[in-house]
Amino acid sequence: MGRLTSRRPVLRLGPEGERRRLDSLAAEEPLEIRVGGRPLSVTMRTPGHDVELAHGFLLTEGVLGAARDVAVARYCDSVDTEGRNTYNVLDVALAPGVEPPDASLERSFYTTSSCGVCGKASLDAVRLKTRFSPAADPLEVACSTLAGLPTALRTAQRVFDSTGGLHAAGLFTGTGELLVAREDVGRHNAVDKVLGWALLNDRVPAGRTVLLVSGRASFELTQKAVMAGVPVLAAVSAPSSLAVELAEESGVTLVGFLRAGTMNVYTHAERINRAG
Amino acid sequence: MGRLTSRRPVLRLGPEGERRRLDSLAAEEPLEIRVGGRPLSVTMRTPGHDVELAHGFLLTEGVLGAARDVAVARYCDSVDTEGRNTYNVLDVALAPGVEPPDASLERSFYTTSSCGVCGKASLDAVRLKTRFSPAADPLEVACSTLAGLPTALRTAQRVFDSTGGLHAAGLFTGTGELLVAREDVGRHNAVDKVLGWALLNDRVPAGRTVLLVSGRASFELTQKAVMAGVPVLAAVSAPSSLAVELAEESGVTLVGFLRAGTMNVYTHAERINRAG
Repeated sequence: MGRLTSRRPVLRLGPEGERRRLDSLAAEEPLEIRVGGRPLSVTMRTPGHDVELAHGFLLTEGVLGAARDVAVARYCDSVDTEGRNTYNVLDVALAPGVEPPDASLERSFYTTSSCGVCGKASLDAVRLKTRFSPAADPLEVACSTLAGLPTALRTAQRVFDSTGGLHAAGLFTGTGELLVAREDVGRHNAVDKVLGWALLNDRVPAGRTVLLVSGRASFELTQKAVMAGVPVLAAVSAPSSLAVELAEESGVTLVGFLRAGTMNVYTHAERINRAG
Repeated sequence: MGRLTSRRPVLRLGPEGERRRLDSLAAEEPLEIRVGGRPLSVTMRTPGHDVELAHGFLLTEGVLGAARDVAVARYCDSVDTEGRNTYNVLDVALAPGVEPPDASLERSFYTTSSCGVCGKASLDAVRLKTRFSPAADPLEVACSTLAGLPTALRTAQRVFDSTGGLHAAGLFTGTGELLVAREDVGRHNAVDKVLGWALLNDRVPAGRTVLLVSGRASFELTQKAVMAGVPVLAAVSAPSSLAVELAEESGVTLVGFLRAGTMNVYTHAERINRAG
């Protein structure tokens, strides 16, 4: 498993008394993403697939539109006190002509509207930034196909059973074929890794795909789906109000509570084939 | 419920066919936190208890140590296109003599160490920033008391049953009395609201308390517990590797998988009375 998990002694207490054993923990370490040598963002992530993570992050922030927008992505020498590289700083050099991100990116994202910061401004910001529109995507997915996706993602998760501590995201075709699955202690990171994989494999815009997340659907996860051109976002748990608003406005089909063969369709139900 | 939830039509699909109904969604909107008029952070949160949220955020980032460190916290006029205040910008004026945060706070937090960015540097940063140490806290909690906390928190959650979409955090005394419970679409926000409440009620450092979170224990949630002086952090789900390392080093008792009467104790088990 490498750095995906680490082992740790634990005291298990319960009605049957106590026992000591070794427990597997999901690994968590900071990753600093730099663009052209300038620090842009630090995220706490599970190490692994860091190049995908950086590509997915920069795609969903509107910096990248295709794999060719990156000249090279490489780990910096970031050494610990013993002089070992920690592999926790990744520097992305943009291709000539690609505009670097504003260093105050995250803040300006929400505050460009004249109405200050509000849900509407957040929706407007996504519309202004996105290069792709899922709205016209002709994908149709059978209800039975969707119902089978959580099990497929769960099966693909190598780590979850041993740690219980990782979020997962998976990208599927419209017939339920799993293209890629990634896990992370951070739900945004799992999605960034999946969408970064798609970018690196020339699958962005990710038309005719379904993005499944193991938890809830927030505004920011929906924003990532929109920015990558994903037409169907499905979540095992609940969506938020602003996630539903963004999905409605962006033409994304948003499915929540996808579990035990049932689901709630919040927006653009026309993509779901209910007979299938 | 006000802005905690919103209603939305939903199409429910499953083996028994389809039906349309109204679904309650957890509200999510951006909150911009300013300090002395300068934008510091934007978080996607569930509206409500915003003053607590801002206090808790600034406490756990090391800016505040007591309620008196804030002169006044108030909503800015942040109007939408119809001229209504959106209540999504909160400006905190610090008391005289309180040092304002570095605008690049979040980034510098992880990158102050000579070893670049790594797990060890993250631990060092917390040690340098915290004003309180939970290490010497004499709290002792009975195993049976801990076992009852998740049900107590669940009972206090007014919203969860209707939306399924909110994270919760609760602060308890050592005998299991609930001091405060807060919910949010973001798990960090729920914890910030709880710790902000503690700050505003002169209960920081939050000695002899147990902080319970409804999900997983990440590095950042553990950091918040440390920064507020909380001696016991309990999570219904799994901790990460770096959360355990930080708890061990900071003298925090970290309990995970607290559910169905059992629990895993990862660090400082001396605070758990196993006979109780």
